[in-house]
Amino acid sequence: MSESSPNFNSRFPFYGPQGRLVLVDSALEAVSRGSTTIGIRTSKFAIISSQIKPTHPLMEPSEKIFSIDFHVGATGSGYIGDILQLTDTLRLEAQRHRLNYETPIDIDSLAKHLSSFLHNYTTYAVRPQAASMILAGADQNGIQLYQVDPSGTFFRGSGFAIGQSSDIALDVITKEYNADMTQADAIKLVKKAIEKALGEKPIVEIGVVTQNSFNKLPLEKT
Amino acid sequence: MSESSPNFNSRFPFYGPQGRLVLVDSALEAVSRGSTTIGIRTSKFAIISSQIKPTHPLMEPSEKIFSIDFHVGATGSGYIGDILQLTDTLRLEAQRHRLNYETPIDIDSLAKHLSSFLHNYTTYAVRPQAASMILAGADQNGIQLYQVDPSGTFFRGSGFAIGQSSDIALDVITKEYNADMTQADAIKLVKKAIEKALGEKPIVEIGVVTQNSFNKLPLEKT
Amino acid sequence: MSESSPNFNSRFPFYGPQGRLVLVDSALEAVSRGSTTIGIRTSKFAIISSQIKPTHPLMEPSEKIFSIDFHVGATGSGYIGDILQLTDTLRLEAQRHRLNYETPIDIDSLAKHLSSFLHNYTTYAVRPQAASMILAGADQNGIQLYQVDPSGTFFRGSGFAIGQSSDIALDVITKEYNADMTQADAIKLVKKAIEKALGEKPIVEIGVVTQNSFNKLPLEKT
Amino acid sequence: MSESSPNFNSRFPFYGPQGRLVLVDSALEAVSRGSTTIGIRTSKFAIISSQIKPTHPLMEPSEKIFSIDFHVGATGSGYIGDILQLTDTLRLEAQRHRLNYETPIDIDSLAKHLSSFLHNYTTYAVRPQAASMILAGADQNGIQLYQVDPSGTFFRGSGFAIGQSSDIALDVITKEYNADMTQADAIKLVKKAIEKALGEKPIVEIGVVTQNSFNKLPLEKT
Amino acid sequence: MSESSPNFNSRFPFYGPQGRLVLVDSALEAVSRGSTTIGIRTSKFAIISSQIKPTHPLMEPSEKIFSIDFHVGATGSGYIGDILQLTDTLRLEAQRHRLNYETPIDIDSLAKHLSSFLHNYTTYAVRPQAASMILAGADQNGIQLYQVDPSGTFFRGSGFAIGQSSDIALDVITKEYNADMTQADAIKLVKKAIEKALGEKPIVEIGVVTQNSFNKLPLEKT
Amino acid sequence: MSESSPNFNSRFPFYGPQGRLVLVDSALEAVSRGSTTIGIRTSKFAIISSQIKPTHPLMEPSEKIFSIDFHVGATGSGYIGDILQLTDTLRLEAQRHRLNYETPIDIDSLAKHLSSFLHNYTTYAVRPQAASMILAGADQNGIQLYQVDPSGTFFRGSGFAIGQSSDIALDVITKEYNADMTQADAIKLVKKAIEKALGEKPIVEIGVVTQNSFNKLPLEKT
Amino acid sequence: MSESSPNFNSRFPFYGPQGRLVLVDSALEAVSRGSTTIGIRTSKFAIISSQIKPTHPLMEPSEKIFSIDFHVGATGSGYIGDILQLTDTLRLEAQRHRLNYETPIDIDSLAKHLSSFLHNYTTYAVRPQAASMILAGADQNGIQLYQVDPSGTFFRGSGFAIGQSSDIALDVITKEYNADMTQADAIKLVKKAIEKALGEKPIVEIGVVTQNSFNKLPLEKT
Repeated sequence: MSESSPNFNSRFPFYGPQGRLVLVDSALEAVSRGSTTIGIRTSKFAIISSQIKPTHPLMEPSEKIFSIDFHVGATGSGYIGDILQLTDTLRLEAQRHRLNYETPIDIDSLAKHLSSFLHNYTTYAVRPQAASMILAGADQNGIQLYQVDPSGTFFRGSGFAIGQSSDIALDVITKEYNADMTQADAIKLVKKAIEKALGEKPIVEIGVVTQNSFNKLPLEKT
Repeated sequence: MSESSPNFNSRFPFYGPQGRLVLVDSALEAVSRGSTTIGIRTSKFAIISSQIKPTHPLMEPSEKIFSIDFHVGATGSGYIGDILQLTDTLRLEAQRHRLNYETPIDIDSLAKHLSSFLHNYTTYAVRPQAASMILAGADQNGIQLYQVDPSGTFFRGSGFAIGQSSDIALDVITKEYNADMTQADAIKLVKKAIEKALGEKPIVEIGVVTQNSFNKLPLEKT
Repeated sequence: MSESSPNFNSRFPFYGPQGRLVLVDSALEAVSRGSTTIGIRTSKFAIISSQIKPTHPLMEPSEKIFSIDFHVGATGSGYIGDILQLTDTLRLEAQRHRLNYETPIDIDSLAKHLSSFLHNYTTYAVRPQAASMILAGADQNGIQLYQVDPSGTFFRGSGFAIGQSSDIALDVITKEYNADMTQADAIKLVKKAIEKALGEKPIVEIGVVTQNSFNKLPLEKT
Repeated sequence: MSESSPNFNSRFPFYGPQGRLVLVDSALEAVSRGSTTIGIRTSKFAIISSQIKPTHPLMEPSEKIFSIDFHVGATGSGYIGDILQLTDTLRLEAQRHRLNYETPIDIDSLAKHLSSFLHNYTTYAVRPQAASMILAGADQNGIQLYQVDPSGTFFRGSGFAIGQSSDIALDVITKEYNADMTQADAIKLVKKAIEKALGEKPIVEIGVVTQNSFNKLPLEKT
Repeated sequence: MSESSPNFNSRFPFYGPQGRLVLVDSALEAVSRGSTTIGIRTSKFAIISSQIKPTHPLMEPSEKIFSIDFHVGATGSGYIGDILQLTDTLRLEAQRHRLNYETPIDIDSLAKHLSSFLHNYTTYAVRPQAASMILAGADQNGIQLYQVDPSGTFFRGSGFAIGQSSDIALDVITKEYNADMTQADAIKLVKKAIEKALGEKPIVEIGVVTQNSFNKLPLEKT
Repeated sequence: MSESSPNFNSRFPFYGPQGRLVLVDSALEAVSRGSTTIGIRTSKFAIISSQIKPTHPLMEPSEKIFSIDFHVGATGSGYIGDILQLTDTLRLEAQRHRLNYETPIDIDSLAKHLSSFLHNYTTYAVRPQAASMILAGADQNGIQLYQVDPSGTFFRGSGFAIGQSSDIALDVITKEYNADMTQADAIKLVKKAIEKALGEKPIVEIGVVTQNSFNKLPLEKT
Repeated sequence: MSESSPNFNSRFPFYGPQGRLVLVDSALEAVSRGSTTIGIRTSKFAIISSQIKPTHPLMEPSEKIFSIDFHVGATGSGYIGDILQLTDTLRLEAQRHRLNYETPIDIDSLAKHLSSFLHNYTTYAVRPQAASMILAGADQNGIQLYQVDPSGTFFRGSGFAIGQSSDIALDVITKEYNADMTQADAIKLVKKAIEKALGEKPIVEIGVVTQNSFNKLPLEKT
């Protein structure tokens, strides 16, 4: 491509220089300023946790850990309005699956549905959603943990961090992760990682997936 | 993202620098110039109140406290035309719920409906609505108070302030809030907060939620 | 919002600096150059009146006072084509109400319908209508007077002025308004206010609402 | 509105400075370069007449006087393609009325239909039509004459002039109009006005409305 | 209109300075570079003829004279793709008329249909078609000849020329036209006019309308 | 048109200076860089042939000669994605004709269908397809050869060349074409023309229409 | 085309200078930065393989080899969100074929379906997908290997490389390809080519097509 072509592209802003998806890059930049949010998984459980940004005393902090179905929870980082919409989308898909197949949806299908939903917003003249999501659930394949990004990209894994200073948080998790750790150790690790990322003791919301179900921990217990 | 990319984004104005939602920021800027508006809640009641901007003597001030259903009231700050549309949306949803389920809608569902309605306007090539709303109602979970913003973000809490100098008003409320105060104390507190915010004695409209119902106070009584 | 954001917004012109609705501002600017138009109300009657802009001798001036239903009249200021469309909208809504409920529409419902109709044009990529309207009518709540603006904002009151130099006209009305005045006094007052605003004796068209009905006065009688 | 706002508006070109409808202004500018066209009315008849722009000898001049229904004729000034479309619209509406009500359409309804049709083109992202029309007809209220402009504005009267140098033509008409003149006098007056406007003897097409019907005069007779 | 308004209009390019239809002007400019094309009519016959632009020897020249129905032929100048589409439109309309009314379509209706079809492309955000068409046919009113332009304007007459140097060709036709000439004289005249316009002996395609039918002359006979 | 009008047109890019179709010109420019492609016809057969651009050894060159129906073949030059779409369109139309009429489609109808399909893309705000096509087939009128361009223009003839240096290739064909030549001579001529155009011995794909059917020659035989 | 035409085109960015498809060029630029990805084929088997970009230890790398149907696999390079969507499209088409025809889809049909799907995105005002895909499968014609690009172009062959430094990888493959090599040799060759392209030993994912089926090799085995 000649040196003048970025100039051409700039009128129709799907692509920037080097074929970058410029609106998705903006969405990711918004995500990188969101609450520090973490997911962690062993073969026995998964923990999802998100920093509760301090509000004034009379305001309940926005919910950051969402129950999607009995066996799945989700959290996210980015614009709250976008996270809420994606959460609704996940819940609807989980219900639709139960209605059609009379079984709980497997986590991989749910992540792919979210991926495809987000990808659509990158292709048409609308706003790509500015939220990365972490899904945790239990299905016939065991405990599952996924991250889905605004571009529709998704990842499976045992540890994810998104939002503000997520690279620091991820570093902590990676170094101290232990496939045999207890649920209590994992919660401690998650808190430590968020604290390290923020440079101060945060309030966090926590959800736990076990073989049986997804549960949010009461906020006061964290 | 390279330094030239904000330039790229600027052609398709969903996102500004740092992934800001530029149109939502404009809408919020309009809200920050609206009437100072407050919501307050205890376990026994909720008060919503909004400054009545002085008009000429022959003009009745615009209604700022809206009855949504027997058990829910709302107020808002921003463009009146936008507030009126959102109010209609809330009333319609409350009626739809009654028709479908033969029970009054719970306040959380109503706030989420409004959140989703507003979020839609942030994603397509239309105008995000320039109004923040405060909902107060009573349902099976007790007295509820919500704030919903143009981005679709919503909050639950015991005290909110939106509109002009809302940070000052919120400060007053936060300092003097008392979970055991009487309804009369609460009304006094709300008036004091708006007065402090505006630097002058305002006229305010007031609505009260109790376990039984939502009622607007007659304007002359305030 | 940073100092560069107005620049961002300018590409997508719903919002201007400080969250202004720029197209609605243009519409209001057009209204402010329209015929000086007044509405006045007591508990016994309402008068609506609009300046008839001088045309050449062989042209009948455009109608400015419109009969909407037996019990409602309207006038407006701004582009005549826009006023005519809004008048049609009002008539249609009044008829629809009669067909559905077999009762005359109440004036509040009619004003809200117009408000919602106008608000729609502020949200999508179309032209907000450049006309403010004054509605006067009689219903079970007595004599009613409303003003509805291009943004969809509406007001109830006893005295309104819109169009060219409306602030001067409103000033006259406000000072000399008397809730006990006779219909003849009110008509004199309205004429005086328009004359003051324009700095010359105008021709005006006048409509009168009483408990029984809306009537236009024959133009020669004014 | 601040001094920078015209700059804002300029991106979305419905409104120009001072709330002007810029596309309608362009349409009117095109009309002002069209054929000089006149309508005149007494209680006994109406004459509509339009200059026939000289073409080459083998081309019949475009028809400028259109029969709409037995009792209505129309003429216009502006782009011929636009005039033709508006003429079709008028004919269709007149036929629809006959089909629905089994009576000839009254001229006021016909003018309002055209007004509303034209107004639509001023509100959406399409081209406002560049033609002003003059309608003449006879109905239960006697002989009627209307002018309808690209903005949807319409006028009733006894004398109109549109198109090139229409102000000069209107001046002639206004000065010499006589409510008791004969049809022959009126035709002479119309020709004189067009001649004065153009500064040369024009060829004109003429249509005549009487109590009974609308008729075009044969071109050779003028 | 102020001096800044052309600047305003330029963003929404339906209208240029002086209310010009800028896209239609471009279409007409394309037409003015098309094949020189002529129509001529007497009370006994009509001839339509278009220059065949020289191609390489192995390519048959594009057909320029089109049979529309037994009694109608057409030719055009401008982009061939556009001419072909308009020809299809004419054929379809002629067939539709036969199906609905069981009579051949009259030429005036056909020309008006084409006019209305072309006019539509001038009003919406699409490309006005770059072709002028000449229609010739025989109906109950005798031999008919029409020219229809990209704006939807149409003309009736006895002689038309469109395309390259059409003013020169029209000049020849106008000077030497004779209402009593024979078909052979007319064909000679048409050829002479095209030759004069182009400054060289052209190849032309010719179609002939008589009272009975439309026929294309075999190309070799011309 | 004044000297400022290109400036106006440039905002709405259907037309460029002199009424050029700018997007179609771009499409044609892409075609002019495509594979050199030739069609040749006598009364007994037709040959279509396209240069196979060298690829790396493990990649089969893209098919350039397409069987459309038993009696029709096609080739094209331009973007391969566009050629493939047009080929599908041709096949579909041929099948539709067989289903509706139970006869093979005639080549003229097929070319016109393609022409109309391509023309549509020049009129709306989409991308005109960047491919010229050559169709060859046998029907009741004998052996037929057509070229269809991105503008929807089509040509019939006995020899066509499109793509890179097509003018050179066409020159060779024109000079050496002989209506009585054998199929073997024609194939030789086609290869020679492409070789001359490219300045090197090309690999070509070849399709042959005879009275009975269309067949692709096996690539190795060429 | 004159030297000013690129300037014209630049407003409507389907085409750039020389008729380039500018958005497709951007998409291809994104592809050229994707994972190095290879397909290789002999008459007995096909191998598809893609570099697994290193992630952090707790994240499973994104799947790059996709099972489409029992007899088909696919891989791709570019944006993962786009690859995932295209993979879904392939799977859906394969299932639809099975449902309609009760046979496995042949690979050529599948590649053409993908080609047509991608081509659509190049023609309308949406984002062309930024992914090139390689399909490998077995059908009645033996082992098949295809590459499909964002423009909708597709290729058949025995060796393809896409993504980062694909020219280096392709060079290795081309030089060392041997139609008689064993599956183990082919896998070694593929790994070597990717290693050469990247300048370091990569992790790769591998899928194998044999006469009987498509299978992914377990990642640890590579």
